[in-house]
Amino acid sequence: MGLEKIDQLAREWLEEAGNRIFMALEQANIEVEAKSDRNDLVTNVDKSTERYFAEKIAENFPEHRLLGEEGYGEEITSLEGIVWVLDPIDGTVNFVEQKRNFAISLGIYQEGVGELAYIYDIVGGEFYFAKRGEGAFVNDVEIPKLAKNNKLEDSLVIINTASVRKFPHMLPVIQAARGLRLYGAATLEYMAVATGRADAYVSANLSPWDIGAGKIIAEEVGAIVTRVDGSEMLITEKGDSFVASPGVHAEILRDYSR
Amino acid sequence: MGLEKIDQLAREWLEEAGNRIFMALEQANIEVEAKSDRNDLVTNVDKSTERYFAEKIAENFPEHRLLGEEGYGEEITSLEGIVWVLDPIDGTVNFVEQKRNFAISLGIYQEGVGELAYIYDIVGGEFYFAKRGEGAFVNDVEIPKLAKNNKLEDSLVIINTASVRKFPHMLPVIQAARGLRLYGAATLEYMAVATGRADAYVSANLSPWDIGAGKIIAEEVGAIVTRVDGSEMLITEKGDSFVASPGVHAEILRDYSR
Repeated sequence: MGLEKIDQLAREWLEEAGNRIFMALEQANIEVEAKSDRNDLVTNVDKSTERYFAEKIAENFPEHRLLGEEGYGEEITSLEGIVWVLDPIDGTVNFVEQKRNFAISLGIYQEGVGELAYIYDIVGGEFYFAKRGEGAFVNDVEIPKLAKNNKLEDSLVIINTASVRKFPHMLPVIQAARGLRLYGAATLEYMAVATGRADAYVSANLSPWDIGAGKIIAEEVGAIVTRVDGSEMLITEKGDSFVASPGVHAEILRDYSR
Repeated sequence: MGLEKIDQLAREWLEEAGNRIFMALEQANIEVEAKSDRNDLVTNVDKSTERYFAEKIAENFPEHRLLGEEGYGEEITSLEGIVWVLDPIDGTVNFVEQKRNFAISLGIYQEGVGELAYIYDIVGGEFYFAKRGEGAFVNDVEIPKLAKNNKLEDSLVIINTASVRKFPHMLPVIQAARGLRLYGAATLEYMAVATGRADAYVSANLSPWDIGAGKIIAEEVGAIVTRVDGSEMLITEKGDSFVASPGVHAEILRDYSR
């Protein structure tokens, strides 16, 4: 089974899922429950969206596996074969409180390599896509490669409060930057870096489904994706995340690490 | 001269100004210079937009005055007669760095009373409008009145780093809230509160043109607009600003003031 067929069906399902989510918003048909804490929310829409993908994947690609936030997939610790890494709604607090600034995130890995990635900002009307080695696109327009030599002092950065608590050396990074922005959805914060709207994004604790697509798209435009200490970020393991344009990534590691 | 005529022309000029700004972005025709510091930017587009309004106002309403960021209007310390309070581009850093998340802000005051307000998020495609006593609208859809009894623990807040430095008691406010968001444009942060996407926005230092329209729209939907200490905020005076839904405004003043 080739990637073309996977790509074609993934797009169909994302469009259908996006329409369903949009209708749920229009009809105010959203039921919220808290998971581990008050900001770890899940809604009926998160669940039904993941279930929709789980069923479609099982029906069309029974040998593929799904690594998803809401548990309709499998416990996955390795990336053998083809794995669909899905967050049905990234930014659930925004989804509930703002009715915007959230996205569907889908990354498709083959033998551990990120091949296809989709981030669909439904209300914002932006569909991000990358295919490994063939560039990244938003609404079919190619995203330019990132500048290599940007400097922190000219940069907007996205560094959330949890990551400042965990990594105190991020406070002087914020002070050195041109400004701080916070959007509240990891995938869209990855896309802010990928499109040059910010030069660095640091988060204390992301899960595979938060980063599975964002990493592929960001790397395709030349962003550097690592852990906060500069080590490799495996998408199968939860943990911190540090994505930045090349010059700013190097500058923060060189001048601000503990 | 009635407000209807002013409203009609203000809308025409905002549409034309929006088209010109959009074209400047498309053609990458933006020249930046720093004013007082590296984040106090002005561009050729800020200036030409304000000049356009200054000329149109002088031509059509020679007895009106303009209070604008870029100095094409007058030094104004009182609000006698009719005053147009204009920020040609609020969020200039976003305009330059992100090519989005900025707005034209226009408030029209008559004998000190805010009568008409417009905030035009050009790239986001959202046109906010309020007429005193007749409600607030986004793209002609009425914005619902804010809930009166929201609680901080369920709220998203927008409290920027400068205001935490100036008002250290805002740090526990951030910790008590559901989450922190930062968009980098005062008018759009006012509109986040007005539309319920956030429940409070605190800024350390805003100018008349930053708040002239936002205050009118926010108050029209029931938000409370004051200084951080709860005192009256006169739009003719620079200073800090605290806008929130009624319950959250009262809770912060009651439980978190120094």
